[in-house]
Order: sequence, then C-alpha cells, then structure tokens
Amino acid sequence: MGGESDRQIGMMPHFLFTVHIYFFPPFSMEHIPSRQDILAAAKRVSSRIRPTPVLQSDALDREAHAQLFWKAECLMPEVGCFKIRGALNALLQFTEQECARGVLTQSSGNHAQAIAAVSQKMGITATIVMPKSANPIKKRNVREFGAHIVECEPGDRARNEMMERVRQETGAVVVHPFNDYRIIAGQATAAKELVEQVPDLDYIVAPVGGGGLLSGTLLAAEYFSPHSKVVAGEPMGADDAYRSLKAGSIQGNEKVDTIADGLITKLGDKTFGIMNERMAPEDIIRVEDHEIAAAMRHLWERLRVTVEPSGAVPFAAVLRQKERFYRKKIGVILSGGNVDLDHIAFLMKS
Amino acid sequence: MGGESDRQIGMMPHFLFTVHIYFFPPFSMEHIPSRQDILAAAKRVSSRIRPTPVLQSDALDREAHAQLFWKAECLMPEVGCFKIRGALNALLQFTEQECARGVLTQSSGNHAQAIAAVSQKMGITATIVMPKSANPIKKRNVREFGAHIVECEPGDRARNEMMERVRQETGAVVVHPFNDYRIIAGQATAAKELVEQVPDLDYIVAPVGGGGLLSGTLLAAEYFSPHSKVVAGEPMGADDAYRSLKAGSIQGNEKVDTIADGLITKLGDKTFGIMNERMAPEDIIRVEDHEIAAAMRHLWERLRVTVEPSGAVPFAAVLRQKERFYRKKIGVILSGGNVDLDHIAFLMKS
Repeated sequence: MGGESDRQIGMMPHFLFTVHIYFFPPFSMEHIPSRQDILAAAKRVSSRIRPTPVLQSDALDREAHAQLFWKAECLMPEVGCFKIRGALNALLQFTEQECARGVLTQSSGNHAQAIAAVSQKMGITATIVMPKSANPIKKRNVREFGAHIVECEPGDRARNEMMERVRQETGAVVVHPFNDYRIIAGQATAAKELVEQVPDLDYIVAPVGGGGLLSGTLLAAEYFSPHSKVVAGEPMGADDAYRSLKAGSIQGNEKVDTIADGLITKLGDKTFGIMNERMAPEDIIRVEDHEIAAAMRHLWERLRVTVEPSGAVPFAAVLRQKERFYRKKIGVILSGGNVDLDHIAFLMKS
Repeated sequence: MGGESDRQIGMMPHFLFTVHIYFFPPFSMEHIPSRQDILAAAKRVSSRIRPTPVLQSDALDREAHAQLFWKAECLMPEVGCFKIRGALNALLQFTEQECARGVLTQSSGNHAQAIAAVSQKMGITATIVMPKSANPIKKRNVREFGAHIVECEPGDRARNEMMERVRQETGAVVVHPFNDYRIIAGQATAAKELVEQVPDLDYIVAPVGGGGLLSGTLLAAEYFSPHSKVVAGEPMGADDAYRSLKAGSIQGNEKVDTIADGLITKLGDKTFGIMNERMAPEDIIRVEDHEIAAAMRHLWERLRVTVEPSGAVPFAAVLRQKERFYRKKIGVILSGGNVDLDHIAFLMKS
C-alpha cells in the first residue's frame, strides 16, 4: 500500500481527497501485490490464524519418487481451505465506513464460506450471491456463519445482474473471489508460510481455477523463495488456464466436465496477468478425473486428511509427470477439504 | 526400570546374571509404569516423532455444547495412529542382543504396522502373526515396512499356537499389542502431550479395545493432569471392558458386532488392573454403530481428517452423554485413521 499513498500524495490534489476515498478507497490495491503487500497480508492473516501444518509421508514419497511436503490448507479451522487467507486480508483492510456498508460477494463454494466466517468474527454484514443450484451443504455452512444468501439463476449473466442489483440496493463493498489484488496477496501467504516451514523447495505445486491461489503462489515464490519453481495442476475437463497461457489471452471453457468443481472458473485479468508473465503453458499440468480420484484416495488413505477433488489435483499432476519431479523436493498445496460424503462414489474402486 | 536394577543387584547372585538377562531382560517393566517411566517413554518417543497436532472446530463445539480439543493421532506420519508410541517405547529399550533376535508380535491391525515401521527404521527383523482373514490392505502395509507375515487360522488358540511356534524357532522377543507395560507407557505419551498442549482439561476421552491406550491415558492424567477425569468410549457390540469393570474381572465378548474393528479385543490383566483401580463402569460410555458412523462423518466433514471407526468412538460417546459434558473442556483422542475406502458404505446416508 506504499504505492497507493504515493499516488494520493503525488497525483491527487488534496481537496479531492474525500471523493478519492469513496471511489478508490486507499486500501484497494491497484498494483500487482509487492513483497511489502504480501508481508503485510501475512501479518494480517497470522494475527487471526495459526500456520497450517506441513505433513509428510514416506509411502507417498516412494510412490512419487520425490520428497513431498504437504501444506495442509484443508486443515484450516472452520472453513477447511486456504480461502480464509484472502478473506482476512481483504476484510481486515476495510475502513470503518466500509465495515458499516457490509461485504458482498458471489461464490458457490469455499470463498463464500470464508467471507461469511471472517465477516461474522468482525461483525460485518455479509451477502453472498449463490446460484439456486448450489450445493445445499455449502449453503447451510454459509448460513451457519450468519451470512445472507441471495439466490440467482445459474450462469454468469444472471449472477452479475444480481450482484449489481444487490450492490446498488445495499451499498455493500464487493470482494471478488479471486480477481482482486487483496485476495491474491492473502492467498500468497500459504506459499510464504510453506517456504518458511520447508526451505529449498525445488517446486511448489498449486491447483488453478480462477487463479487466485496460483498467482499468489507465483508472487510468494518470486519474493521469498526465488529458486522454487511454481507449477500448477488443472483438470483436463476445464483446462482454460492452460489454453489461456497458450493463446496469450483469457479463454473460457465451452463445456466443463470434471469432478474438481472448485476449479471450473476461468481466469480474471489480474490473475491471468500475473500468471502470463511468470509461467509457460507447460507449467500447467492437465490431469484426467480418474487421476484426480486416485490421488484423492491416496491422500485420504496415506496422509489421513480429507481432501476435496480440487485439492488433489496438484498431487495428480506430480504423479502424471514423475520424470520431471524425479527426486526433487516439492511443496504441494492441499488447497481444501470440503467434501460432501454422499457424493464420493467416484472414489470407490468397486 | 529403577526397580529392575535394584532387583538385579539385591536379589540375584551375580553368576546368574546371564540367565537372568535371558528370562527377565532388565528392560521389561514389571511394575505399573511410574511417572518416571512415562517421562522416559516421552523422551524416547519425542526423539523420533513430533507431537501430533491438536485441532479445534467451532462447529463441532456448537454441536456438542462443549469445548473440544482433538488430539489428532490419526495424523501420525506413516502409521496413522498412536500405536507407534508403544512400539517406539518398547523397541528403543531392546538390548543389542534382543535387536539381533528380532521382534515378534500378533495383530491384524495398527499395532502390526507400528512394530513393522519402527523395526524397519531400527534395522530389527520383525515377524507378525496375522490371521489369514486379515484385511489385505493392512497386510500390504506391513509388508511395505519390510516385516515378515506368518499367517494363522482365525481364533485365539490358533494364533497363540503360531506365536509360540515362531518364538521357539526364531528366538524373537515378543511384544504384546497392549498387555505390556512398555506399550502402556508408550501409549501414555499421547495424553501427556495433550495435557501439555491444552492445560486444564476437565475430561480426556479415549477409546477402549485391549486397553493399552486407555490405561496409559489414565496414568498420564494421574501424573500430569490430576484434575482431568478420564472416560472411555466403547462399542456396544463389543462392550467387554464395561462388563469387566462391572464384574470386577476380565470378561470376553461372546459375539462381536461392530464397525469399530480396532476395539473388539478383550482386556489383558495389566490393562484391566490399571483400569479397575481408576474407573467406574459408568466411566465407559457405550455407543451404537450408527452413532459411531455419524461421529466419523462429522469428523471427516468438519475437521477434515480421516478417522477410522474406532477413532470416532470417543466423539460418539461425548455426543451420547451431552449433559455430562455440557460446557466442559474436553480432550478427545482421535486414535487412528486407517480406513479401507472400499468399505465405508456405512458412512453414506443415502
């Protein structure tokens, strides 16, 4: 936020200050998060939550022919995923005024729970736009955290229209699930913690959906562990990130077909921008659903943590390109553990 | 082990020393583990493994109307359960001679894996007598740790005969899965760690099968947190521990019927002795299988750890007697996380 105050002082006449505050609150971060921004995010995040543990397993190391360090974001209290980091970093920067206006977001999954959980602790009113078709368990969890759910028809257009309507009615502050530098800086703290817990990693592997976690991981590695190469796992049935890097512009998915329901979103301009400057298409390893299911089984059985399909994608990527990772020291981000146990038939072999 | 060396010096003529060693190795602990013994065990255990984490969940606290601290023994590296503690405490006390003779035990489950894992690291030959009918995944795990499996027919008698035969052939040192003070002192280190991580617990809840973990927990509480009351969860379909305390003598199960396959063993004289002096029958809370399955689901979904049915029994016990635990501060030992994912149909609601 150093950059922001420079801008205030250098570029804006003082008498516009109040107006400036309103439309461009000094806390919105309109540059790619700097080292300082991520350090500040880490301070905010660690003021509220303890570092998640790093697990190890000889059996999984033998299987992958590599040394694997499992960053267990799925063990994050309450929300069971990394998303709490971005939510904390965004909401802890709200002004008093913004806190009073409340927060508005759209998500059918983990981001919704994270915003709801943090808002509840901070006494901020949270409104979440969710498609009618969203998983009832996820809706229940969001309601348990005291957030309001506004339902919309499925599809981007209906959702965006509903978002705009609620924003105009309530004046709430919008926090996008991933295409927001405060969120990206928050998610970056997972990899920052990891490289502090395990120095000298050759690789860090994260999943990619909207790209919030992945772009944060790229920045954290660049600033805090420049010798660690970041690669991503992506489901073959929603491989828009791979195709976007290949095309040099954001691509969508014509048809989505994967069990990794947390990774079907397409990239935003902010996440794509960070990724496009720092990765080649071959740094995104695409995996089939049966590989994701096998990886998930392994993690449940060998690490004894509940990992959702999206969270197992990075391990599936490591297993798919064993030669590339042969004998390397690899940090794997287990992004989340929110699974509906009534829908895990795909995990069963028989 | 102080007592043992007194005995050597005071009671045995020196020329019998070698014979004495053979039949009563100076490391076998023939008194109930003392405070010192458990401190020594903790030193041995912590020389090889890090403390397991204590997890928390507001959602589970709300459900139980209590403050719950989850001692995640299921996250123990490699073997995924507390049994590694007893195995370490026993095997790290082996003399060079005993190491050369190898270790022999019988178990169809977690103790087998723990002995195999520790033996492999210490370069000791391990032989495990397992019933032919034992779970193939557990057999595979034991073999992966380099242990020899000797199969026997199901049933106590066939197993004991096979144990005796192998012992005579190999001269290996027998380490019983629970009725051994070295094992009990080792398992006690889980509760010792817990009361250091979370002081002032009102209750500590452990599962009971053969009673190794429970009797260790009773001793650890007595020595290191005397205000914490220890209670146990036991499956209704194998409630021999409850009936034993009621009768004042060890009872068996005529018929066993429970999903908590780790808890079907009856008590041994050593574990029963410790329990009988420290607990009333009503301190053993019996739970039905559907309660165990519900508890397991909750733990998977809310804590995001894989817990085996036996490991979910203490939580089922807390939920069954909510009034007793109302608003109390409770440490719950999640004893293990070894689940065969092809056999969890009972977890599904639909």
